[in-house]
Amino acid sequence: MIQENKNILQKNAPIGVFDSGVGGLTVAREIMRQMPNEKIVYFGDTARVPYGSKSKETVTRFSKQIVRFLQTYQVKTIVVACNTASAFALEELEQETDIPVIGVLKPGAKTAAEVTRNGKIGVIATEATIGSKMYSYYIKELNKQVTIYGKACPLFVPLVEEGLWEDPVTDEIAKRYLTELIDIDIDTLILGCTHYPLIRSTLGRIMGEKVTLVNPAYETAMELKALLMEKGLLNGEHPKLGENQYQFYVSDGAEKFKRFANSIIKYGILSAKTINIEQY
Amino acid sequence: MIQENKNILQKNAPIGVFDSGVGGLTVAREIMRQMPNEKIVYFGDTARVPYGSKSKETVTRFSKQIVRFLQTYQVKTIVVACNTASAFALEELEQETDIPVIGVLKPGAKTAAEVTRNGKIGVIATEATIGSKMYSYYIKELNKQVTIYGKACPLFVPLVEEGLWEDPVTDEIAKRYLTELIDIDIDTLILGCTHYPLIRSTLGRIMGEKVTLVNPAYETAMELKALLMEKGLLNGEHPKLGENQYQFYVSDGAEKFKRFANSIIKYGILSAKTINIEQY
Repeated sequence: MIQENKNILQKNAPIGVFDSGVGGLTVAREIMRQMPNEKIVYFGDTARVPYGSKSKETVTRFSKQIVRFLQTYQVKTIVVACNTASAFALEELEQETDIPVIGVLKPGAKTAAEVTRNGKIGVIATEATIGSKMYSYYIKELNKQVTIYGKACPLFVPLVEEGLWEDPVTDEIAKRYLTELIDIDIDTLILGCTHYPLIRSTLGRIMGEKVTLVNPAYETAMELKALLMEKGLLNGEHPKLGENQYQFYVSDGAEKFKRFANSIIKYGILSAKTINIEQY
Repeated sequence: MIQENKNILQKNAPIGVFDSGVGGLTVAREIMRQMPNEKIVYFGDTARVPYGSKSKETVTRFSKQIVRFLQTYQVKTIVVACNTASAFALEELEQETDIPVIGVLKPGAKTAAEVTRNGKIGVIATEATIGSKMYSYYIKELNKQVTIYGKACPLFVPLVEEGLWEDPVTDEIAKRYLTELIDIDIDTLILGCTHYPLIRSTLGRIMGEKVTLVNPAYETAMELKALLMEKGLLNGEHPKLGENQYQFYVSDGAEKFKRFANSIIKYGILSAKTINIEQY
């Protein structure tokens, strides 16, 4: 009976999702779509964004603080909805806590390894994620025959945040970054940064129809669902009227976050609160 | 005699200079040029860069931590070599410490107020600096007759950091940002972010010869020199051989900082150390 109550409590508990800023909302959005009964506590580290140009030590220290913060909400699992944090910090985070921690790299790597036909996979991501070589590592674990080509695209995040999702400048920069991947004849491209799905149509147009674009946000939500089902933790009931299904926290600029978030998530973000993450 | 010794000690003390990252090196470079005998302790907050998209509260909290860090080096004065931090935090920093604190806004504002002929001054800067309206405030204090036109240019910093100092993409973005300032017929343009002097030639070409570009880095070093002379704190002697004239600290990625820094400062940056600024 106690065990049963505990399970009901846990099923009802929220999922913690975090990112360096707004990008992880593309992952949160997929979780909302695929698991409409789940509650989410989202944290965006807007005071220290971006992570993609920073070191493993720093990103790991920041990520640990965030995990400690999310645990104050008794989350039943944590999704690291940031490629850089997943690449640098996942293993250490798994050691920090007893609850399952899911990153975005493994699910993306798995799909890419499955869908490639010619064995040539491209990865576009931040400098940090590319430098970590973790996508290669996860893909090679599944399929030693493939070759992975990584390309850092540092200007994509500022271009997306500036709103230039469809713009000649974004086209020009994308062509520069992607030319070598096109020349190598990759047939699969992992969008290895949570901002990139927002310029998916530009990327798809430049890469051409023959290249499959892999969006780890989608794959991560799928893996999360499988994990929750396996552990009997999927929430069977929709949150009651008046319950706060989605909670958003940031380390800076809650109002600005809300505006950007509302352009990504159609559910409407009622409120976002600023907290001092350095205290955790 | 005690007073005299104290003065000699103080003259010999380093100048503290800080920025959100590498941009403030354009200010440090001017101090090195204009005051070759001075020692400098530079801090770049590379773990939390950029500041220009963040709030007053957050930038002020970060800046206070940095001032506490710099004071552990017994600096004789502190230069806030970041426009955003100068705009948001200068007043609070002045209250935090007994030593003089100089920002980059007032010196830039003073020059602009002096050189304008038609009374139309443009300011380009980060979102935060423009939002603060502090350049307007300082210019109006000196000359109520002028009109100030502010324009946030959020893509300039990532373009500069990506090395696109002379590039058709930077040209295209600069044209978009500057067109309205050209149409208004400003005759003076303040480069209100420490990264912008690095694309000065692009900005100058687009604005045309009739527009005077004001680089607050230069003006700030001039004001610093005047202040040190006035207080009798200018260092009369060049540091001895073996003395570490320039010390560089960052909150992340010392090696990467060194590479970028060496492209700005010709003196050669022998070493940069990473410290945890959140502890201050």
